[in-house]
Amino acid sequence: MLLLRRGVFVLLSSPSPRAPLAKPLLPQRPPRTLAPTARQLVAMSAPAPTPAPSAGGAGTMSRDAFRAAVTNTLERRLFFVPSFKIYGGVAGLYDYGPPGCAVKANVLAFWRQHFVLEEGMLEVDCPCVTPEVVLKASGHVDKFTDLMVKDEKTGNCYRADHLLKDFCKDKLEKDHTLSPEMVQEYNRVLAILDDLSAEQLGAKIKEYGIVAPDTKNPLSDPYPFNLMFQTSIGPSGLSPGYMRPETAQGIFVNFKDLYYYNGNKLPFAAAQIGQAFRNEISPRQGLLRVREFTLAEIEHFVDPEDKSHPKFGDVSDLEFLMFPREDQMAGRSATRLKLGNAVSEGTVNNETLGYFIGRVYLFLTQLGIDKDRLRFRQHLPNEMAHYAADCWDAEIECSYGWIECVGIADRSAYDLRAHSDKSGEKLEAHEKFAEPREVEKLVITPSKKELGLAFKGNQKMVLESLEAMTETEALDMKAVLESKGEVEFKVCTLGKDVTIKKNMVSINIEKKKEHQRKFTPSVIEPSFGIGRIIYCLFEHCFYQRAGKTEDEQLNVFRFPPLVAPIKCTVFPLVKLEKFEVVAKKISKALTAAGISHIIDMTGNTIGKRYARTDEIGVPLAITVDNTISVTVRDRDSKDQIRVEVDEVASVVKEVTDGQSTWADIMWRYPAHTTSAADEEDAEP
Amino acid sequence: MLLLRRGVFVLLSSPSPRAPLAKPLLPQRPPRTLAPTARQLVAMSAPAPTPAPSAGGAGTMSRDAFRAAVTNTLERRLFFVPSFKIYGGVAGLYDYGPPGCAVKANVLAFWRQHFVLEEGMLEVDCPCVTPEVVLKASGHVDKFTDLMVKDEKTGNCYRADHLLKDFCKDKLEKDHTLSPEMVQEYNRVLAILDDLSAEQLGAKIKEYGIVAPDTKNPLSDPYPFNLMFQTSIGPSGLSPGYMRPETAQGIFVNFKDLYYYNGNKLPFAAAQIGQAFRNEISPRQGLLRVREFTLAEIEHFVDPEDKSHPKFGDVSDLEFLMFPREDQMAGRSATRLKLGNAVSEGTVNNETLGYFIGRVYLFLTQLGIDKDRLRFRQHLPNEMAHYAADCWDAEIECSYGWIECVGIADRSAYDLRAHSDKSGEKLEAHEKFAEPREVEKLVITPSKKELGLAFKGNQKMVLESLEAMTETEALDMKAVLESKGEVEFKVCTLGKDVTIKKNMVSINIEKKKEHQRKFTPSVIEPSFGIGRIIYCLFEHCFYQRAGKTEDEQLNVFRFPPLVAPIKCTVFPLVKLEKFEVVAKKISKALTAAGISHIIDMTGNTIGKRYARTDEIGVPLAITVDNTISVTVRDRDSKDQIRVEVDEVASVVKEVTDGQSTWADIMWRYPAHTTSAADEEDAEP
Repeated sequence: MLLLRRGVFVLLSSPSPRAPLAKPLLPQRPPRTLAPTARQLVAMSAPAPTPAPSAGGAGTMSRDAFRAAVTNTLERRLFFVPSFKIYGGVAGLYDYGPPGCAVKANVLAFWRQHFVLEEGMLEVDCPCVTPEVVLKASGHVDKFTDLMVKDEKTGNCYRADHLLKDFCKDKLEKDHTLSPEMVQEYNRVLAILDDLSAEQLGAKIKEYGIVAPDTKNPLSDPYPFNLMFQTSIGPSGLSPGYMRPETAQGIFVNFKDLYYYNGNKLPFAAAQIGQAFRNEISPRQGLLRVREFTLAEIEHFVDPEDKSHPKFGDVSDLEFLMFPREDQMAGRSATRLKLGNAVSEGTVNNETLGYFIGRVYLFLTQLGIDKDRLRFRQHLPNEMAHYAADCWDAEIECSYGWIECVGIADRSAYDLRAHSDKSGEKLEAHEKFAEPREVEKLVITPSKKELGLAFKGNQKMVLESLEAMTETEALDMKAVLESKGEVEFKVCTLGKDVTIKKNMVSINIEKKKEHQRKFTPSVIEPSFGIGRIIYCLFEHCFYQRAGKTEDEQLNVFRFPPLVAPIKCTVFPLVKLEKFEVVAKKISKALTAAGISHIIDMTGNTIGKRYARTDEIGVPLAITVDNTISVTVRDRDSKDQIRVEVDEVASVVKEVTDGQSTWADIMWRYPAHTTSAADEEDAEP
Repeated sequence: MLLLRRGVFVLLSSPSPRAPLAKPLLPQRPPRTLAPTARQLVAMSAPAPTPAPSAGGAGTMSRDAFRAAVTNTLERRLFFVPSFKIYGGVAGLYDYGPPGCAVKANVLAFWRQHFVLEEGMLEVDCPCVTPEVVLKASGHVDKFTDLMVKDEKTGNCYRADHLLKDFCKDKLEKDHTLSPEMVQEYNRVLAILDDLSAEQLGAKIKEYGIVAPDTKNPLSDPYPFNLMFQTSIGPSGLSPGYMRPETAQGIFVNFKDLYYYNGNKLPFAAAQIGQAFRNEISPRQGLLRVREFTLAEIEHFVDPEDKSHPKFGDVSDLEFLMFPREDQMAGRSATRLKLGNAVSEGTVNNETLGYFIGRVYLFLTQLGIDKDRLRFRQHLPNEMAHYAADCWDAEIECSYGWIECVGIADRSAYDLRAHSDKSGEKLEAHEKFAEPREVEKLVITPSKKELGLAFKGNQKMVLESLEAMTETEALDMKAVLESKGEVEFKVCTLGKDVTIKKNMVSINIEKKKEHQRKFTPSVIEPSFGIGRIIYCLFEHCFYQRAGKTEDEQLNVFRFPPLVAPIKCTVFPLVKLEKFEVVAKKISKALTAAGISHIIDMTGNTIGKRYARTDEIGVPLAITVDNTISVTVRDRDSKDQIRVEVDEVASVVKEVTDGQSTWADIMWRYPAHTTSAADEEDAEP
């Protein structure tokens, strides 16, 4: 699953669900010394945020100003709004309004095309309401927690690490009397923040005298708060359930059926798009850390002994920013690597993992993510679950820093084993051999008669212990029995050692013929936080350009046609019936072609209408200024061409379907020149 | 919102959310006599279920056998499976497997095209987690309940009406010693079941001696159980929330922003697709009554004084089965009506409601719903909320009876007013007059001085009562004051009458100029239960045909290409490398054209492969039996044509996109004849 628990670079290792033993914040972990680890050194050496690039005249804009300009446009044009606003809203819940909803639908449709259809994945759709037993098996019930402190008087809750972080940052920024020692101390705490245990966090909060920010009341000790929304299934109140914190579990519990559906063959991938829920203690960072969000997850099941991928060659020549573990630990920056080399040199663990990294790169850049602000960062050893073979996050840089938007993890056999153990249902695959294979097998054969004579009532427990020996233990015993004739043997269930004699057990390596191999498949899991990708896309596509007056800045989203919420507008140049008739005719043709568009019959100047639609990222505008041919205008270049009325819908379709670019089209049609005044006559 | 609370015809009026005052099961309603109402007579006269039609050789199949054959195929081919099966499952929760998920995605994509895109609706996407205040305003917190009884010893819960229904049905079916009076009694109870109050239900359960079905223990009195999944938002435990029981509320709370987005113009429609949740007491009927489901809802906001629709002419000639209130109450059946007449004759309340009825008809029949098993049933007076102007349900007949799948309701201004009142935010529209209008207004001007002299401390309450008079009351008072000089006037807040004299108040009709009109829009709400539609579609598309042997029945889903989970298969006729190369080439072309397909390289006979893909409703099969041209086979007719390899992807696209039908294509390409033996060589 996607972690989705960290926003910026310094928050790298906050709780990691389904990786219980790798979770740095678990209170049950033994307290460690506060010396920075290698990964923490990386965090400390992370470069200071650089201003977000911005096209047009706003190149020198600060990060905060840039973010304010984007989010102001997004909210004003209803890309998204806080949910339940008329009731004061709820932190961490947002609605997508019409253009945001259309962008989301386009992103998901492209995801289905790029992954499900092109890779022949098995898509499933499982409920959000999940019974406790499933999330008990996955580890979420016990381990999916954040550390929380409470205002001891009001009961208000805060994330313990956030309070400590805010305190240290505040000191460093505002207290100019700090000694060099204290500057170092606060920086060190910031760097190791995410690895602190509950006790260590509590101790620091006490040491610094941190109180509740709203009331200045004292705070409780930190304690774990489970981040799942709990509910009750059915009327009895006896069946606890949760709103799923990820979609992956729905796939794992269906493994057996899906494997059968795939003709009992590996590898295959299952996929799911759906809502997931996390009851954040104190949501921050707008659309990046929310309480309900859309995940798109893939579980690619593969033979652990063969992680090659037949289509790896299709992506091996791709070259992009990668940030391997070693470079992070050495304090170096991300560098451009060729994916083929990264796999062949062992930087990326295997071809299948590499293949998905490549496919994720193509997915994100085709959506409109700037490839220079996208990197694949490998997890450091202390970020990964103990069972994971390798993990890479697709991180996108935005005004909040580098944001984890896609997690691509080789989770080995952990999840299937966990559900197999809990449910008692065997979740495994088998490989039938073309020819039976001869294998050597250790066979332990206790002699019931001799054991009975020697141990009487304890016979059964001794026998079971002998049969449960590992191969090494058995071979060791065999050697001792052969040399000395007897051996001391600890029987756990009896709590004591017994003496085993040579005649009580025979231990042999035998050759056997096997017709198939049974195993638990490994799973490689690319997991996409759709809301995070969309927010980063908004930032990467946003720019401002000068309007009619020098002060005036016009907002533009340079969405590729693939994701643009509306593909095209139709404007009659002036209010004339004959133009409106043509506009309606074109609109009908666009609808028939399945092209989302708006038709604007208001009497506003054409410049105002362009500005209004540039601001929601409409790539093409058709202005009806003639009954035979019309003007088609490109959003970013503002170039205009003339196209026959009957042809215009198919030209628009060609560009918005991605068969042609605007540049291709430009060559085929006569240019149209407009008065500069009109174009720049923007809305106030 | 869609009621989604009733399955078969006799369950017509179980609880109706967001229609609190119309809910027949509310305990606070005064007990009524048990005499059947008009609507109940309809229920009693409902025709006995007729066997579900079934093509091919299974025409005489019983309803139950037909349903068993469909659901067996659906589960075996992973259209859907019970969720969390390896843990024993959870009643009322289902997963869509790969083909089911694809059908669902296709249905939703078509819904977006047919409604959102073609009607220019504003689509939004709001969270499932909803704070209590929103659902308090909508009435769900207080009124969205079913009546439940508990086993007094084990605590097991049952729906009170279900127990009573099962008891009566059981008696009628199995007890052959019943007196005619008791037969009449049980039938009467079945007919009025849904109108019984908690007290009445409890009395009947006691009278009949009904006990807990599992344990035979006594039962508690019936009491209301709220059907929403409750949870808690944030860590404090102080903010109760619910999983939304419908998506409509997310639209209502955004009315103001959406109205602004639409240029402050009416009418406009907003739409939302998303998950909804209902914690059913005891889910039944497979996919028809579940605890989590996908809704697609439209809220069309319109001026209550003008419910005409500019595009009504596009649907007015449609003719289909309608079941107006009068026909139901007179015990007649549904009849074919012309939609234009139904509106002009006032059977359907207004054009906009009629327009949506027509659009829903087109939507469902284009999906593949049999038009002869689809009817639009008008709500009876006691089914409708008091504020509703008119309601029609699209009901689809399946093996469970007539199932409500789409509700189309004119809900007047109820929902916006409820949120306006609760939030204090004005949710209204305004119409600016082209020219100011002169209106007559009643002006009541009490004389504070005279009232003060006469009533001293009570002055304020008398004054307020005078100002609160309706127009009629005021004009009556004016008349009496003018004739008699004084009048007795009841002041509710004082609890007594006072004498008002002529000098205490002046009442006049004055002329005023108004520049605009403010009003709360009416909302017309088509609400689609996507899972129910899909289940009915499965039944309508399923048929069996004879296989190789006489006993063998082959299952087929005759999905239209629009909804078929996979559009096409590619089979090399025999395992030959040159055929596999061609198959892969065709597969690549299909992927590029965005056509979902499967490529089956197994060595199975072509007949087996056809049977296997007919069973998941793949419309077209490409058999590679040549390197220049290939065979394309139609699922239902089994007709085959020959098409060039380079052309085949575009031919498939033409049919599956709906530009051409198979019949169109048949004329253009040479026919191919196959050996009958091969075609019928089906899988065992």
